Amino acid sequence: MIADRYRETILDGLREALAGKTRLRAILRYHIGMSDADGNPSEAYGKLLRPAIVLAVAEGLGGDIAVAREAALALELVHNFSLIHDDIQDRDEVRRGRATVWAIHGIAEAINAGDLMLTIAMAHGVAAGPAHATALLEAVDRMIEGQSLDLQFERRSVTVDEYLAMVDRKTGALLSCAFQLGGLAAGVGDDVLEQLAGLGGSIGRGFQIQDDLLGIWGVGDVVGKPQGSDIRRRKKSFPIAAAHAEVSGDDAARLGAIYNAQGDEGVPDQDVAWVIELLNRQGVRAQGQRNVDEHFEAALRTIGELPLDSSIAEDLRSLIAGLRGREK
Amino acid sequence: MIADRYRETILDGLREALAGKTRLRAILRYHIGMSDADGNPSEAYGKLLRPAIVLAVAEGLGGDIAVAREAALALELVHNFSLIHDDIQDRDEVRRGRATVWAIHGIAEAINAGDLMLTIAMAHGVAAGPAHATALLEAVDRMIEGQSLDLQFERRSVTVDEYLAMVDRKTGALLSCAFQLGGLAAGVGDDVLEQLAGLGGSIGRGFQIQDDLLGIWGVGDVVGKPQGSDIRRRKKSFPIAAAHAEVSGDDAARLGAIYNAQGDEGVPDQDVAWVIELLNRQGVRAQGQRNVDEHFEAALRTIGELPLDSSIAEDLRSLIAGLRGREK
Repeated sequence: MIADRYRETILDGLREALAGKTRLRAILRYHIGMSDADGNPSEAYGKLLRPAIVLAVAEGLGGDIAVAREAALALELVHNFSLIHDDIQDRDEVRRGRATVWAIHGIAEAINAGDLMLTIAMAHGVAAGPAHATALLEAVDRMIEGQSLDLQFERRSVTVDEYLAMVDRKTGALLSCAFQLGGLAAGVGDDVLEQLAGLGGSIGRGFQIQDDLLGIWGVGDVVGKPQGSDIRRRKKSFPIAAAHAEVSGDDAARLGAIYNAQGDEGVPDQDVAWVIELLNRQGVRAQGQRNVDEHFEAALRTIGELPLDSSIAEDLRSLIAGLRGREK
Repeated sequence: MIADRYRETILDGLREALAGKTRLRAILRYHIGMSDADGNPSEAYGKLLRPAIVLAVAEGLGGDIAVAREAALALELVHNFSLIHDDIQDRDEVRRGRATVWAIHGIAEAINAGDLMLTIAMAHGVAAGPAHATALLEAVDRMIEGQSLDLQFERRSVTVDEYLAMVDRKTGALLSCAFQLGGLAAGVGDDVLEQLAGLGGSIGRGFQIQDDLLGIWGVGDVVGKPQGSDIRRRKKSFPIAAAHAEVSGDDAARLGAIYNAQGDEGVPDQDVAWVIELLNRQGVRAQGQRNVDEHFEAALRTIGELPLDSSIAEDLRSLIAGLRGREK
């Protein structure tokens, strides 16, 4: 697996990037998983998917690994900035089995923590070079706009196209950027950069729609939350946008009433069951799976077209196979 | 006044920087004062002090104005990023007579708005050049650490040295950066850069301690809030840190009890009156004013030592006189 190969390089870089004696820097180390809540060393890291992609693509295209390393660190730190602020916004108290930063330190300090993570990220982006820094900032801009769209979607119905436009920003922007940063470290031309961005975008869509399917039909014990949990929290995910396009009459009215209800209470059990039944009746799960397959197949085709070293191309194919095969 | 001279240049740049059709960008334009809450044009801008300093120093040292303009925009946008997040952290619902972003759009979207403001700021920092971008990021890092210190001070007693270390970060970092960015646009050497940073730091301390004095002894009608308002909200400002160093026995115990009480309720009127009486008895106001004078005098001396064009040096002296003379 790609992430394993570059793991130590990335972790060394993160340790250096987040060193320092202030409380805020200790909070960043906790968030990223290199210490527990008491400041003792731990190894609770995430998948480190994005920086591994940067390094693999740079290596596979014969790029400058020192530059790619700075860019990879910057991207992983940007990703973690977004998680810290996202957890505040969603009021999520747990991430990967650990208390979130705001749940421990309050909203005010968690805002600071995310802000500092982004600032440190950009210092590494600038160290990688102006083209890298600019690509990163464009991706962060798109991601934040996606985050804002997602919030706006909480208050109204969403078409499949609107949903995809949001996913391309919120999830796709950083994945596209990962591939672009690898390409920039190799000095490739605009055509290849565009292919690389498209590859990241395809993986982003495939990944997110699959995530949405798991959020409704995922096996509770594996996913770690009850079936239909995305319905309970009224998440306007792909299946709901797809169903909205198909239904009419009473079904449309009831679906709208369930999804546009205001307030913090979750959707009642009988409504959750009804939504699942409706989605099943409309064949939305199969439609979603076809979309997932299409996007991942497109990604595989692009990998075949890129002038990548063959063993790195194979690693990227395995990475996609791993994402497709996941059950949580 | 310096800010007036560069006003149109800065405003043109801000309008360009914040253009765009998304809801989030409209929120940024509202925050910065170029539109009202309904999106109609308005002119509710702030003082634009920091970008004016960048441009004045660059011009006064014979620097590249196009580079300085990018850096000045970046700094003003960074300042506004910090205000948007600061208002969430302090739960302030009004700024300069207008509703704050979080008060209108909620915390989640206000976090996004600040994040995007910082991202757009850094795009301009990168456009100015790598040295500018690095100086900006170091200043933002220091400012956020200062913000974190200020939060930590809410829960414990603070010495004058700790207070000054916080002010040098929270207020001083961006002011130092303003002078540095002007110097960088003129390609000055490290010695001059250090003098410029020190000049900004002196103005930061003078400005903040004066602000703290106004927060306790300012004339209510002019300051726009009742006398002693900083005491009511338990702000650990300069006078309180200075008093802590002087008092002992019963006075120390009562001051500690008032300032370290937890909870959202303000300090009761009779305690506010007692704190003011204690501060007056300790001569803290005069001590604070001596500090303000010292820092502003140090700033004036540095202006005299710098190789600045004489008319720009005069403008900077007027700027300091304006800050010293303010009553709110």
